[in-house]
Amino acid sequence: MSLRDDGPSLAVVGVTGAVGQEFLSVLSDRDFPYRSLKLLASKRSAGKEMTFEGRTYIVEELDEDSFDGIDIALFSAGGSISKQFGPLAVEKGTIVVDNSSAFRMVDDVPLVIPEVNPQAMSHIKLGSGKGALIANPNCSTIICLMAATPLHRRAKVTRMVVSTYQAASGAGAAAMEELELQTREVLEGKPPTCNIFSQQYAFNLFSHNAPILSNGYNEEEMKLVKETRKIWDDITVRVTATCIRVPVMRAHAESVNLQFETPLDEDTAREILESAPGVVVIDDRASNHFPTPLEVSNKDAVAVGRIRRDVSLDGDNGLDIFVCGDQIRKGAALNAVQIAEMLL
Amino acid sequence: MSLRDDGPSLAVVGVTGAVGQEFLSVLSDRDFPYRSLKLLASKRSAGKEMTFEGRTYIVEELDEDSFDGIDIALFSAGGSISKQFGPLAVEKGTIVVDNSSAFRMVDDVPLVIPEVNPQAMSHIKLGSGKGALIANPNCSTIICLMAATPLHRRAKVTRMVVSTYQAASGAGAAAMEELELQTREVLEGKPPTCNIFSQQYAFNLFSHNAPILSNGYNEEEMKLVKETRKIWDDITVRVTATCIRVPVMRAHAESVNLQFETPLDEDTAREILESAPGVVVIDDRASNHFPTPLEVSNKDAVAVGRIRRDVSLDGDNGLDIFVCGDQIRKGAALNAVQIAEMLL
Repeated sequence: MSLRDDGPSLAVVGVTGAVGQEFLSVLSDRDFPYRSLKLLASKRSAGKEMTFEGRTYIVEELDEDSFDGIDIALFSAGGSISKQFGPLAVEKGTIVVDNSSAFRMVDDVPLVIPEVNPQAMSHIKLGSGKGALIANPNCSTIICLMAATPLHRRAKVTRMVVSTYQAASGAGAAAMEELELQTREVLEGKPPTCNIFSQQYAFNLFSHNAPILSNGYNEEEMKLVKETRKIWDDITVRVTATCIRVPVMRAHAESVNLQFETPLDEDTAREILESAPGVVVIDDRASNHFPTPLEVSNKDAVAVGRIRRDVSLDGDNGLDIFVCGDQIRKGAALNAVQIAEMLL
Repeated sequence: MSLRDDGPSLAVVGVTGAVGQEFLSVLSDRDFPYRSLKLLASKRSAGKEMTFEGRTYIVEELDEDSFDGIDIALFSAGGSISKQFGPLAVEKGTIVVDNSSAFRMVDDVPLVIPEVNPQAMSHIKLGSGKGALIANPNCSTIICLMAATPLHRRAKVTRMVVSTYQAASGAGAAAMEELELQTREVLEGKPPTCNIFSQQYAFNLFSHNAPILSNGYNEEEMKLVKETRKIWDDITVRVTATCIRVPVMRAHAESVNLQFETPLDEDTAREILESAPGVVVIDDRASNHFPTPLEVSNKDAVAVGRIRRDVSLDGDNGLDIFVCGDQIRKGAALNAVQIAEMLL
C-alpha cells in the first residue's frame, strides 16, 4: 500500500480516459505514496465507482473547488479542460502535471522528460505552498527524445528527420474501440463505422488527424519540431516530421534519421543507448528481431533498434534508428507520474 | 478482345501468384494485344484451369521448353526461378520482363520505370529475334521514384530519406491471407498463426523481413538506395531508407524527405507533380485529405500529398512528401506490362 500520511494529496483529472486509467495503473505499479486520492472527471462520469488499491472511490465532477487541499494534480482531460482548470488549481497551491498541449510552449512552464531535462523543473518545490504548471510533452516527442537525447549529448544532433507510425490510443480509448469495431466490420464485408476518424482506419493508414497549419505541417508534426527545441534548450536543432496513424492499438513507432555535429559510430551509439535510463536496445540483426509496437505495449521502456550508420552521409555523421514506445505509458501517464515522483 | 494475329506471343511465369494474377488483370484492362498466351507456374499448379478474356487456359509447368516461340515473358515467380529460367528464355529469343530482384543490378540489364527512364531499354527491339532481360524495379523504388523523379528533373535531388509503410502483398498472396487470418484470431482472443512471418502482424508492425546486410540495412532498404542510382543514372544521389511492414493489404506508403541542389518551392513542386504522368496529387489541407493505401488500392496512379517545404532546411532546398501506390499494380504488374507495351 502506498497510502501514507507523509505522501502528497493527489488528484487525477480525466480519470475515466485511456491515460487517466493508466495514471492509476502506473501510480500503483510504482508504489507512489499519497495521503489522499481524488478522482475527477466530467459530469457524465461523476458518481461512477472505481476501485484502486483495495479502496472504492466515487468519481467526482471537476469544478472550481476540486483542488482545495490538493498537492499534485495529474491532468489528462484535453487542452480546453487544462486551460480552464489548470490555472485555478495553481492558484490553490496545486502543482499540476498536465498531459495536454495547452501549456507546453508557454515560456515559464517546464516541459519535462525526467530522463532528459529534469533540471527544467528544479525550481518547483512540493510543500512550498506555491502552485505550478509542469507540462508533459507530446507522446511522439517523448518517445523520440528518449532515444535521441543520449546520442545528442555525445555528438550534438544538428538535424532530425522523423516519420511516425502512431497508434490508435493517441486519439483516446474511443479510437481504439473504433479500430477494433472497424476491423470486425471490414472482415465481415460491412462498411466501417467512422465516428472518431473520418475514414477507414482498419487495414489502412493516414496522415495524422491533427489540423494542418499554414506551413503545411500538422500540429502533431510541429510539436516534434518545437518541443524538441524547448526540451533540449537548443533553438538551433533542425527537425522535420511526418506523422502517420497506423492500425496499431497502443504503442507508437518512429523512424528517426539523425545528423550529428561530431562523428558518432554505430557501435558507440549502441553502447550509449544500452546504458541510457528508460531505454532498451532490441537490435538483433541475425534473427531480424527489432522493436515492435506490440513488444513494447504495457512496458515502461522505450525500445530502440535498427541502429546503423546512415549510408547517405559521409563518415559517421549520421545514424538511422527505429524507436517504439507505449503511447499511453511512457508517452503519457508514466512520464507524468515520473515528473510527480521528482517532486517528492 | 486483344487476341490479335499481329500481337506478340506472350507467356506469364508465376501466374498463380498475387502478381501473376495481376499481370492478367492489367493485360486485360489495358487491352494488351497478343497472338497467343501461355500460363506457366510450378508443378504444383500445373493442370489448373484459368479463364482469361473468355478463353480457358490450362496452367503449364515451367520447363526448359516453355519459351519456344515466345516473344515476351512476364516473370514473377521469385528470384531463383528467374535466375534459372530467365537466361534460358533469352537464349530462345524471348524478351523477359522480370519482376524479381535477380537481374536488377546486373550492368547490362535495363532497370525501367516507363515514366522515368524509358531510354534505358531503347536498344531492345521486339521482332529482332534477339532475346533480352529487362528488370522491373522493386515496388518501393517504383512508388518512390514516380513522385521523386519529376522533382529531381527540375531541381536535382541530392539526398533522400525514405521511411516506408509496406503492405502484406509485397510478401505475396499467402502473407495477405495470414494477415487476415491473424486479425480474426487476435479479435477472437486466440494466438495468431505465424507461418509467413515470424511474429504477430495483426495490429502490429515490424522491420521489413528481408535479410539484414553487413552495413545494418536490410535488402529492401538497399534496393531503394541502389536502384535509385541506377534508374536515375546518377551515382551521386544519396539515399537512406527504413523499411517497415504495416498491417495493410496491398498498397505501400512512403514518407519521403527530399533535399535539392537548386531551390524548389512547394507550389512549383505541386504543379510539377500535378502534370506528371502516372501521378495524382491528393493534397487537401482544409479537409485533411491526403493519400492513403486504401484509396490507391487497385488504382494505376501513384498518389502524392503532404507536399510541404521542409522547415528543417533553409530556403526552398527541401520538401517532405507522402506517397502511396498499389504494390501489386504500379509496384509490380502494371509497371511490367507498361515495359512490355513499350516493346510493341
